[in-house]
Order: sequence, then C-alpha cells, then structure tokens
Amino acid sequence: MNSFGERLRLTTFGESHGPAIGGVIDGLPSGMKVNFDKLRLRMQERRPGQKNTTQREEKDEPEFLSGLTSEGVTLGSPIAFIIRNKDVRPEDYDILAEAYRPNHADFTCQAKYHIRDYRGGGRASARETACRVVAGSLAEQFLAAKEIVVDAFLSKVGNSTGTYEEMMAEVNRAREDKDSVGGVVSCVIEGLPAGIGEPVYDKLSARLAYAMMSINAAKGFETGGGFCMATGRGSETIDAFYLASDGKVKTRTNHNGGILGGISTGMPVEFRVAFKPTPTIGKPLPLLSEAGEEFEAVVPGRHDPCVAVRAVPVVRAMACLVIADLLLQSRF
Amino acid sequence: MNSFGERLRLTTFGESHGPAIGGVIDGLPSGMKVNFDKLRLRMQERRPGQKNTTQREEKDEPEFLSGLTSEGVTLGSPIAFIIRNKDVRPEDYDILAEAYRPNHADFTCQAKYHIRDYRGGGRASARETACRVVAGSLAEQFLAAKEIVVDAFLSKVGNSTGTYEEMMAEVNRAREDKDSVGGVVSCVIEGLPAGIGEPVYDKLSARLAYAMMSINAAKGFETGGGFCMATGRGSETIDAFYLASDGKVKTRTNHNGGILGGISTGMPVEFRVAFKPTPTIGKPLPLLSEAGEEFEAVVPGRHDPCVAVRAVPVVRAMACLVIADLLLQSRF
Amino acid sequence: MNSFGERLRLTTFGESHGPAIGGVIDGLPSGMKVNFDKLRLRMQERRPGQKNTTQREEKDEPEFLSGLTSEGVTLGSPIAFIIRNKDVRPEDYDILAEAYRPNHADFTCQAKYHIRDYRGGGRASARETACRVVAGSLAEQFLAAKEIVVDAFLSKVGNSTGTYEEMMAEVNRAREDKDSVGGVVSCVIEGLPAGIGEPVYDKLSARLAYAMMSINAAKGFETGGGFCMATGRGSETIDAFYLASDGKVKTRTNHNGGILGGISTGMPVEFRVAFKPTPTIGKPLPLLSEAGEEFEAVVPGRHDPCVAVRAVPVVRAMACLVIADLLLQSRF
Amino acid sequence: MNSFGERLRLTTFGESHGPAIGGVIDGLPSGMKVNFDKLRLRMQERRPGQKNTTQREEKDEPEFLSGLTSEGVTLGSPIAFIIRNKDVRPEDYDILAEAYRPNHADFTCQAKYHIRDYRGGGRASARETACRVVAGSLAEQFLAAKEIVVDAFLSKVGNSTGTYEEMMAEVNRAREDKDSVGGVVSCVIEGLPAGIGEPVYDKLSARLAYAMMSINAAKGFETGGGFCMATGRGSETIDAFYLASDGKVKTRTNHNGGILGGISTGMPVEFRVAFKPTPTIGKPLPLLSEAGEEFEAVVPGRHDPCVAVRAVPVVRAMACLVIADLLLQSRF
Repeated sequence: MNSFGERLRLTTFGESHGPAIGGVIDGLPSGMKVNFDKLRLRMQERRPGQKNTTQREEKDEPEFLSGLTSEGVTLGSPIAFIIRNKDVRPEDYDILAEAYRPNHADFTCQAKYHIRDYRGGGRASARETACRVVAGSLAEQFLAAKEIVVDAFLSKVGNSTGTYEEMMAEVNRAREDKDSVGGVVSCVIEGLPAGIGEPVYDKLSARLAYAMMSINAAKGFETGGGFCMATGRGSETIDAFYLASDGKVKTRTNHNGGILGGISTGMPVEFRVAFKPTPTIGKPLPLLSEAGEEFEAVVPGRHDPCVAVRAVPVVRAMACLVIADLLLQSRF
Repeated sequence: MNSFGERLRLTTFGESHGPAIGGVIDGLPSGMKVNFDKLRLRMQERRPGQKNTTQREEKDEPEFLSGLTSEGVTLGSPIAFIIRNKDVRPEDYDILAEAYRPNHADFTCQAKYHIRDYRGGGRASARETACRVVAGSLAEQFLAAKEIVVDAFLSKVGNSTGTYEEMMAEVNRAREDKDSVGGVVSCVIEGLPAGIGEPVYDKLSARLAYAMMSINAAKGFETGGGFCMATGRGSETIDAFYLASDGKVKTRTNHNGGILGGISTGMPVEFRVAFKPTPTIGKPLPLLSEAGEEFEAVVPGRHDPCVAVRAVPVVRAMACLVIADLLLQSRF
Repeated sequence: MNSFGERLRLTTFGESHGPAIGGVIDGLPSGMKVNFDKLRLRMQERRPGQKNTTQREEKDEPEFLSGLTSEGVTLGSPIAFIIRNKDVRPEDYDILAEAYRPNHADFTCQAKYHIRDYRGGGRASARETACRVVAGSLAEQFLAAKEIVVDAFLSKVGNSTGTYEEMMAEVNRAREDKDSVGGVVSCVIEGLPAGIGEPVYDKLSARLAYAMMSINAAKGFETGGGFCMATGRGSETIDAFYLASDGKVKTRTNHNGGILGGISTGMPVEFRVAFKPTPTIGKPLPLLSEAGEEFEAVVPGRHDPCVAVRAVPVVRAMACLVIADLLLQSRF
Repeated sequence: MNSFGERLRLTTFGESHGPAIGGVIDGLPSGMKVNFDKLRLRMQERRPGQKNTTQREEKDEPEFLSGLTSEGVTLGSPIAFIIRNKDVRPEDYDILAEAYRPNHADFTCQAKYHIRDYRGGGRASARETACRVVAGSLAEQFLAAKEIVVDAFLSKVGNSTGTYEEMMAEVNRAREDKDSVGGVVSCVIEGLPAGIGEPVYDKLSARLAYAMMSINAAKGFETGGGFCMATGRGSETIDAFYLASDGKVKTRTNHNGGILGGISTGMPVEFRVAFKPTPTIGKPLPLLSEAGEEFEAVVPGRHDPCVAVRAVPVVRAMACLVIADLLLQSRF
C-alpha cells in the first residue's frame, strides 16, 4: 500500500509521467503555522541539477488543497497537496515500451501488476520522493517546535569520505566516465528525549530501518557502530552511563547510536544509509525485450550519476516522519 | 505494540521472569498439518548452550492452546502457545534492582514505562525471541509447501569469515577473555516468485529491514551488495536480464539481492544482519544507580559471548514471517 | 484518521470551502477499465437538487490525477482524484463564525481541534461524501465484474414507507413547513458468495455497521430482522437450510439478512440505516455563541429537508467499499 | 483477524472445546493497580446460570501470564491471560459433526475455512466473550480513574420494557415454552469529555457500532434517538446548547445521544444494541447434513433462552474498550 506511518500518516500517489503526483498528510495536530520558505528550501535540495539554478525550469511547487487555513495554519484535518507534472516528454521513452532495464523496477513491476506505465518508471520513479520531502518538511517543523533537530548529510561517495567538494569531485568523475557511483548518507537526530520507541517489534531502529530502506536505491542501513560493531569486542563498545550536570542521564560514548533495546536513550540518534549507484548510466546497457530478446542500447533520459546526493533531503524527511509519528504515539 | 505482520500476525507477550512467555499467530490458513519435530528442531537451535545437550534442563517446549485440531491441523483461527518460565532465580538479579547496565535496555525501559521488571530484562530479554522462532517455524512450513526455502547461517564472527569451526573458535576466545564478540548472520530465500513486495513504502527490502532490526542486538542490515555497493560504480553492478530455459526471466548476476524497486525478481533474496557483541561480559562493568551514582561491578547471569550465534534461527524465523505475510497479502 | 478500509483503502481530504476535496483509492487491482459514465451517474444521484437538472450549476466532476492509463485502465497504483470547490460564498456563513449550531458538529469540532473552519462545516460537511461516491463507484464496478450487485434505496421518510412518490411528498411537506424529516435507507447485496467476513471482531455485520454509522447523520443500523428480532421468539425466525437445485446451500427464509456468525451465507445481505432529520431547518434555531450567549437566528445556507434522500448513493458506495475490501482480503 | 482496537488492542484466541481460551491486552499504560475483585464481579455477570450460584461449577477464573507485577500493577507490556476449558463433553455434539444448525455459524464457518471444530461452535461460540469481559474490565478500571463510568443494562425482552423482574419473567416464559426470545441492551457512558472521536470515518458512533455488532447475536445498533429519529421532524429533536454553571457547554436535551458529527459532546453517550433470540431452542430444529439431507432433531447442549441477558457485561466491556482506545489515541 502507499501509506507510511500510524498516527502521522503520509499517503502518496502519482506516476512520474501522469497528470500529477501528490500526497495526503493525516494526523498533524491543529494550530501549527507552516513556514513555506523552509518547505521550499527542502524541495530545492531534492531537485535535479540543484546547483545550476538558472537552468532549472521545473519548479515543483506543491499546491496545497486542504488542511490549512488561508493563513497556512494546520486545521488538524488531512493536508493534501499536488505537484503537477510538466515537461513530460514520453517520446524519450519509446525504447522502453517493451524492454526491461537492468537494475530497474521495469521487470518486477510488470511481474506484479501485469501492466505498467513504462514512461519514467511509474510509481517506482524517484520523483515520488518529492512528496516525502513535502511531508517530511512539515514533520520537521513540528519537531523543531519541540527542539528536536534532524540533520542529514552526504558522508561517502564511492571510496571518498572527504569534504563535500571531494565527494562531488568523485561524482563528477563518474559523470565524465558516463558511469555512476554509490554513496552513503548519514543522519543525526538531536534533542529526542529518552523513552521513545518500543521494546519489541516497533523498535526505533526498526522503524528507521523500514523508512530508510523504502527510499529508492537504498541497499543498507546501520545505526550507531553498525556493521563495524559486528567485528568488535563487547569490552570496546561500552557506553557508560552518568548523571550529567543538567540532571539528565547520558552516556560517555555513543556506540549504540542513541538507541538501547529499541528505545531512545536521549543521546543523539545516529544512523547511515547506503545507496547503490544510479542504475542508468551513459554507456550502452544490456536490455531484455518482453519477448525475451537480449540487446544493448543507450537508455535515454537525464540521470544524476549519484542518487545519494539527492537522497539527503529524503533521508531527513523520512527520519522526521518516523520521529514525529512516534512522538504522536507517545504521550510526550 | 507487540504485534508483527498484517495478514499473518504474531502477537507476543511475557516477561522473562514472569509466569510464562507466549504468542498468538493469527492468519495462518486452515488445513495445514504442523510438523512438531521440525518446530522442535528450530527451538533447539535458539536455545542457550545448544551444543551440550546433556546439561540442558530448560526444555522450552511450547504448549499449544488453540487453533489446531487434536491432530495438529490448523483451523484458520488464532494459534496460541505458551512457554512456562522455569528455573527463575530472581535473587541473581538483586544488584540490578536499582542500577542501569551499560548497552542494555534497563535505563530506556525505565524512561519509557517508569516501572520495570528488572529481573532478566522483562520484555527486552532475548527470551522473547523463542516466541518468534515458534511462529517462524510454522511460517517456514507454510512456505515449504510452496517450495520457498529460507536459510540463515552465521557468516562472520569478529573479523573471522571462515568456517563454522573457525568462527566458533573466535567465540571461544572471547569467552576465555571474559569478553564478548559481534557477528553477522546471512540469509538466503530461494523459490520466491517475482512480483512480491510493494513499489513504494512496503518494499520487500524495507519489510525485511524492519523485521531484522527488531531483533535484539541488531545494529545493521543490508541486502544484495549492501554497503559495498555504495563504494562502487554503476557499471560494475549491472544484473543483466535473460530468459532462462525454464521460461523464467533471470539475471546473470545478483548484486541487487533478488529485489528491484522493492519487489522480488525471482532470483534468491539475499541479506545480512549485523549483531553487536553481547552487552554483558564477565569483566566488571560501569553501572549507574537510579540515584545517579556510578560504580563498577560484575553483572551476574550466564550470557553467551556472541548473540549472533543464537540469532541465526531468529533471523530465519523473522524472514519466514515477512515472506509468508507478503504472500498472503498477494494473490500468489 | 481519514482512511477507510484495509486492502482497498480510501483516504479523503478537503474542507467544503477550501480549494478542493478529493481522495486516494489504494488497493484496487490493475487491469480494470473504469466506466466513467456509470461513475457520473452515481455522482448525479448524490448531488443537491438532483431532480431539477437545468438549475444545477455545480458539476462536481472529479479530476483523476493518477493510477489510470490514458484509456482509463487501473494500473494497480493509487488512484487520486480531486473535485474543485466552486460557488463558495463564505459570506453566507458570517453568523456562524463564533456560534455553535444545534445538532451540528460546530461545537464538537471546536472541542477537538481548538480551531475550526466554520464555513460550511469543514470536514464534517456532507460534501465529503462525494468522495465516497467516487470511490464506491469504482468498487461497485469491481464487484459487478464478479456478479455481485449492491442496491440501495429509500425505504422510509418520516412515517411513510410508501412509494417513492409518497415518500418524496413527505419530504416536500417538511420543506413547506420550513422543517426537515428523517428517513431510512435500505440496502441489498446480491451475489456475494458464502464465507465472506470474519467470525469474531471483523464480522461482516460489524464492518457494515462501522461503514454506515460513519455516514453523516446516521443514527442507527440493523441487519436482517434487526430490532424487530429483539422482540420476537426464536421459533419464529428460523432460517432453515436446504440444498438448492443449483448445488448451493440456501435458506428458505432470510431473517438473518444473509449473515450468520458474522460470515456471509450466500443469501442476499440485507441491512437498513436510519438517518436523523437535517439539523438545519428554515425556522429560527437556538444558537450558542463561543462566549456562552444563547440567541435565536435563522441559519443561512440551502439545505435538503431530508438527508436520507441523498444518502442513498452514499450507503451503496460504502457497502461496495466494505464488500470489495473483504473480497480482496479473502482469496475469493 | 482476531484483534480489536488500535492503541488499546485486544487479541483473543481459543476454541470453546479446545484446551483454553484467552487473550492479550496490549497498550494499557503502566502503573495501574488491577482490582481483581471488580474483574471477578464482571466475569460473574457473564456466566451461564449466574442466578443459581450453588449449581455453578465452572469458575472461569482467568490466569494472568504477563504484563503485571506480582502485586498486580501493570507494566505497560502486553497482559496475557488464559481460561482453561473444563467440563468439556464433546459427545454431546456428535449429532452436529456433519450437520448445519439453522441460525448458527456452522455452515458459514465451513464455507470459510473448509474445516471446523463442530464441538460447541469453535471461535463462533459465545464463550469467546469471556475474554472480552476480562479485557473490558481492565479498560473499565482505566476509565474509572478518569471518572468515566460505563453502565449497561437490559432494557427490553421480547415486547417487555418493564422492570428487570418483568423482563426475566418473559425470559422464563420462553424457557417454559422450550423457545427463546430476543432483547435489547442499553448503555450509557457518563463523564466522557467533549472532543473524543473523529469527524469522518472513525466517528465515535461508528466505532461503537462496530464493537457492538461484533458481539454474537447482535442484529442492530442505534445511538440517541436512533431509528425513532428517522420517523421524526427536525424541529422536534433540537438539542439546544447552553453554558452550564460548571463552565461546560451542555445541551438541554440529548436526542443525539452525546455525539455530534461523530465526536463526543460531553453529554452522556447513549446507545442500544438489539440481540436476536438464542438460535438453539428446546424444540426440534430443521438441520441440513453436509451431504445435503434435511432432517429434524432436538439439538443438544444447554442454552440460555435469551442471549441479551448475558450480553449486558459484554456490551459494557466492548464500550469500555472503545472509549479507552479512543482516549489513548487522543491527548486527553
């Protein structure tokens, strides 16, 4: 199904080449004044080619249809928004009408639905994530009012874990090679009080993992020490508790990434998400026709060489949705 | 909440030192004959000290209360089972009555519930996973009838990715050092047809991640190439499609771990779960009293030095529950 | 929350005097060709003043944004639609800005949300039911393909259980008296196979009751003999089973309304829904200002004198959604 | 599925003639001291033949397995309980092994599951309601701490709406005639604050209707004026608001039964549930064998002639579960 969350629930819709995409945000409490500038900023981060603002034509401005007063204050009712699809050039995709691209959802969607909207990937398109960013931005504003801050940033591209410039240089090398490259996005949540999350199935770590692995191209998730912890000794990763001067219980280190037994400790919640390289590259790719014939072709369409770059605001958005949902379920 | 799954739903209950633990399995179709020997085998794999069978006293045999005919055939109604807690020695835990162990859920459970059953960890105890194995074993039998086979195995302990014997040697070294060590469990699902999973939020990868990260001590999840894919180029990880001689579409490689766009490809589904070292070790640990005083003590209780070893049947059980649930939601 | 259903899920949004109302239909299988003429017919039945077609200006034509091919075939993805609000005259409602109408949701919405969109009732407006009719019509078409037919009709207005003309005469008498009148809508579902519904909480009768009591102004629900059965003897209401010539098990009478133990019997499912008189009438009404002052005034706005008349397509729509959802949950 | 509720969720299990019935209550906050005497009282009200206490042998005492400290204080974790089935005499039911009783769930359960536990009705047995009463009693105690009081009482038996003695005389007349009789149970919820319930699908009235219609033998539900309101004029049923001396907004009458637009008004919530006569009576009944043969026989088993009598504590229990769930979903 196309809904995410329990007490704060986002339902999204829309094919990338249909009339519009959009979403419905249900459960956001009444009385919150939406800051549309902040929302616009988040949308901008997610947009293709966001560095060259003069060239951009697609504005992707969401139109809000419900749930807000004319002053932009939430009513407590569902907030619906749509983003019209413009600049749709279906002819670009003719080659894909009856062929499956490798590492793409073409074949699996066909296997599931027995019909598909081959133009641009339908629901599987990364364009859907624009709706997550809209909803996530409202959740972020809800959290900010409680002094909970969610930050996401690119922490690795290929083998580079250097500065942003160095990582973008890695991206550009891939682009010049008509290739693509993978990356890792890190996220830190500060200000979350201790006691959020459930001890068994709905662990905070499990909810975050579910949210992050639902992002296009995500292949891995880890929290705190993550996979490195699997190689270490217990004596090396002890987060000793102490009573801080502000009266809060804290830990001297944070190997557990702010989560113990599935519940927040009050320390920063830390996790990372691994993204595979963009499936479509500038070189010829092996395709399979629906009739079963293999052939090679350059797949049309403009693609970022590193999905991880644009995934940053999506990771933040999903983290905000998870945390806001859990807070609304708790009595915090 | 303490339920897992939608159309096949497991609800578990029980504190590790209360009268009993148990669960309710709802949604398993009627008419399936349960093989109790296979169930017993899975339970045995999860049990503490499973290598030295003569010493074991705790049998952990589930008593089934409902949902089965006297011949062990499912009725389609909820299947409830309980496992009585024996050999409970609360006096072992007196030191923990008012202290928080590091890397444990003592503090976070207190922060959440303001009351806690300090003896043995309450709901946060790994004992809860016995119920997952019972339910997972029934799901495994349901899948086996559809020729879907789920296998899980230990693939790494500390830095050892060697044979089972080598990995267990690493475990023993940790035990001898009064320490503990982390590990990785791998899982492969064979026979799953293409088309299972949802393209947006309920991606097969997202559901599996949620399930795995809900297991005690899990710190990371990755599918297919996982975190390694984040360091590579797109041109290196292309899973080319072809039409196999059995009439099925397959891929020549499986970097994507049997999942594309969140939906199964028909290739083996592959993933790995990272587990942190057992939090409690034989050496003195830094504790914090509820009153805020830090002190050092050796924490009582017998603990496996590597939770990953016993997590193997739990990973398989959770994978079976996820797959059976998705199949029951689909029309397969 | 603003969602209805599990495997076929409708999420609606929109205030009656905001930019638009609309909905998202998730879970309808792919490959169904939508008949827009039939949809238009259902919409027309629900519309205010539907007898005088020349006077109607508001078309209430839904715009579909997703989930359909350009030929109107379902893709299996969420089907979103919006209906723009036109002819909005907020000045009509100035008197209500700070007053609570009796028998309306003004006060309760204020108590719940501490903010309200007083113009036209916000989410509580009957205008929301237009979205139910859109979704219900698609569900009706899904059921028709399985030869399941859902019919709803007005069966009582005030004390009249006569012909449609006699009942409408009763409506007109109320209108002439500047008053309103209650009514009952009956519904019959034919073609539903035996075995649909759950034996405990999700009884078919319980699901239908939930759906019907969610319609504005509904005050009662009964199935089969309903409240009359409460006054009778067991020996008078025995539905004897027999094996019919078509090989199906049937009952000679249908006091139980096609449901036994919460599960369909294969006989027609029959139920009735009671609607209260329209709360707003042409006479002066007692109002309460937010400051606590009681006063009398004629409340502006044009209102049908009998909500039951326009509830007929809404009852059918909700019945279709319930049945289609249960079928999609079953393996039928 | 066999679960009820969202934030306070009851999952029940057990066949009437299997080893045990029971339930899991998830979501009750920690720190509540359970009054087991009050629980016992509610259980007693539901029991067959509760007037003749000396003859009763079946104690139906629930055994609590989890979720409580040894002092009976809730831990916030799931509370599981079981009630062992005693006095099971399957031989009583031999006649039903291959026959369908009229007005019973025998045929529909067979149609759904293709297997059935014919002894005593399996899950469809009214014995399941014992579990609802256990859970409802805990919910009642949770509500009592918030000064919300839920009362249920028998208000009609056959055509008698007289005193309890007169209604029981009607029951006895039916018993003497080897017949059964229907009845109505009324319920009043006092102390519920205004603002509870949702304006669209999850109306308080809809949730109550769903809960009540899920009780065995329920055929109708109405709130406030109910079906009578459908026969009246709008001018006759106006609940005028006023500001009461305690500072609360109240209504001078309560035709709407304490609910407007699906949300509580703060006035007493009032509803009624119609129950059909007990299906099994002392006279010979028409049966249908699975092979399709019709025959007459007296069906064995002892049955109350009026299910409505024992439904009283079940109605109260379900009302308590609905209200407690909605309160836990709200921020009240």
